[in-house]
Amino acid sequence: MTRGCFITLEGTEGAGKTTALAHIVAWLEYRNIPYVLTREPGGTPIAEEIRQLVLSPRDEQVVPLSELLLVFAARAQHIEKLIKPTLNLGTWVVCDRFTDSTYAYQGGGRQLPFEPIVQLENLVQAGFQPDLTLLLDVTPEVGMRRASRRSAADRIEQEAMSFFQRAKQAFLARAESAPERFRVINADQNLESVKDQITQALSGWSELHRG
Amino acid sequence: MTRGCFITLEGTEGAGKTTALAHIVAWLEYRNIPYVLTREPGGTPIAEEIRQLVLSPRDEQVVPLSELLLVFAARAQHIEKLIKPTLNLGTWVVCDRFTDSTYAYQGGGRQLPFEPIVQLENLVQAGFQPDLTLLLDVTPEVGMRRASRRSAADRIEQEAMSFFQRAKQAFLARAESAPERFRVINADQNLESVKDQITQALSGWSELHRG
Ligand SMILES: Nc1ncnc2c1ncn2[C@@H]1O[C@H](COP(=O)(O)OP(=O)(O)OP(=O)(O)O)[C@@H](O)[C@H]1O
Ligand SMILES: Nc1ncnc2c1ncn2[C@@H]1O[C@H](COP(=O)(O)OP(=O)(O)OP(=O)(O)O)[C@@H](O)[C@H]1O
Ligand SMILES: [Mg+2]
Ligand SMILES: [Mg+2]
Repeated sequence: MTRGCFITLEGTEGAGKTTALAHIVAWLEYRNIPYVLTREPGGTPIAEEIRQLVLSPRDEQVVPLSELLLVFAARAQHIEKLIKPTLNLGTWVVCDRFTDSTYAYQGGGRQLPFEPIVQLENLVQAGFQPDLTLLLDVTPEVGMRRASRRSAADRIEQEAMSFFQRAKQAFLARAESAPERFRVINADQNLESVKDQITQALSGWSELHRG
Repeated sequence: MTRGCFITLEGTEGAGKTTALAHIVAWLEYRNIPYVLTREPGGTPIAEEIRQLVLSPRDEQVVPLSELLLVFAARAQHIEKLIKPTLNLGTWVVCDRFTDSTYAYQGGGRQLPFEPIVQLENLVQAGFQPDLTLLLDVTPEVGMRRASRRSAADRIEQEAMSFFQRAKQAFLARAESAPERFRVINADQNLESVKDQITQALSGWSELHRG
C-alpha cells in the first residue's frame, strides 16, 4: 500500500486557509482519495487542550519559550497519534497550519531566535515534513479585515499589524528555502482566483510526484 | 541586596518531600529568612494548567516526548514568572520537585534517552540550577505504601514498581554527578530521623555557602 500524502495549509490570519480546505476536499473526492482533515495546534483531544492553553486570552502572560514548547508538545502528540498512523493506512492528511506557522509566528512575529525552533523541529519531527505546503500569501491588512468580519479576536489575533507583516515575510522565506515542497498562492485575489491557483498547484504537484 | 537561595526537594512517590517542606519552613522562619513555597510541574496558573494535562489520567496516551515538552513548557513559565523574580527580591524559593525529577521520571522511569532532556534543560534553564537539592532517597515499596495511605493514584503513581526503581537510581546518579549541589537524605527512616538529617543538611550547607 502507498503511504498517504501530507498536505499543509499556511498563511497569516484570514488568508483563507480554512476556506481552502473545502476546495482541497473537493479535489480529493473527485479523485476518490481517502483523506483526514486536521489542524494545528490541535488534532487530538490532548493537543486540542494544549491549543486552548496557547490561544485563550488570560491574565498571566505566556512566556514566548513556553508557548514554543507547548506548540511542539501538541505537535509531537498530533504526529504520533494521528498524522503518521493515518498516512501509514494510505489515507491523505490535510492540515490547517503546521511547523511553518511556528517559524512565522514564534520566530517572525514574536522574534524568538530561529535556533530553538530548528532544534525542537529536529527533536519532534526528526526529518518528517509535509509532502506539499500551500502558502496562502496575503497582505496582513486584507487578511485581518476578512478575519474580523468572521469572529472575535483570539490572543494571537490581538497582535499588532507589524507582527503579521513579519510573519508574512517569514513564511515567504520558508517557501524560498524549500521550493520543492511549497506552492505560493496569491491570496489577496478573490475566491475564484484563489481556488484556481489551488487546483493548479495540486494538479501540477500531483503530476510531478504521483505520475 | 543578596539574591535568595533556590532549594529543591526531590525523591520518588511518598519519599516525604511535601512533609519535608514544613520542616524547611520552620528552619527558615527561625532564621527570619523570607521564602516562597512552590512545586513542579506547576507554580503559576498556566503552569498548573499544564500540570493537570500531564497528571490527570485520560483515554488518549500522552506520548513520552509530548510529556517531556509539556514539563519544560511549565518550567519555562515557572522560572520566568515566579522563581527568578522572587530570588531577585532576595526571597528564597523552596520547590517541591524540579528538573532532577524530569531526569528521574522521563529519563529513568520512562527510559527516554537523556539527550533530549539535556537539550531542553539547556534551552529552558541556560545554566540556571538550584543552589541546594535535598534528595529524599526512599525504597520505592516504602514510599508507595506511604503514598497509597494518603490519596488515590494519579497517572504517574499508576506506574509499575520497576519504574520507580529506575527513577530512584536515576536520582542517585544525578546526585553523584553534582555532589556540591545535592544532599542525600535516607528517607526510609522515621520522620524524626529524616527531620534531623534535613536540619543537618541545611545548616551544613548554609555554613559552607553563606558563612
Ligand atoms: N480570497 C478571498 N477573498 C475574499 N474573502 C475570502 C477569501 N478567502 C477567504 N475569505 C473569507 O475571509 C474570511 C477568513 O477566511 P478563512 O477563515 O478561510 O481564513 P483563515 O486563513 O483560515 O483564517 P485564520 O488564520 O483566522 O484561521 C472568511 O469569512 C472567508 O469566507
Ligand atoms: N519518614 C517518614 N516516615 C513515615 N511516614 C512518612 C515519612 N515521611 C512522610 N511520611 C508520610 O508518608 C506520606 C507521604 O509523604 P509526603 O506526601 O510528604 O511524600 P511526597 O514525597 O511528597 O509524595 P508525592 O511524591 O506523592 O508528592 C504522608 O502521609 C506522610 O505523612
Ligand atoms: Mg482558519
Ligand atoms: Mg508531595
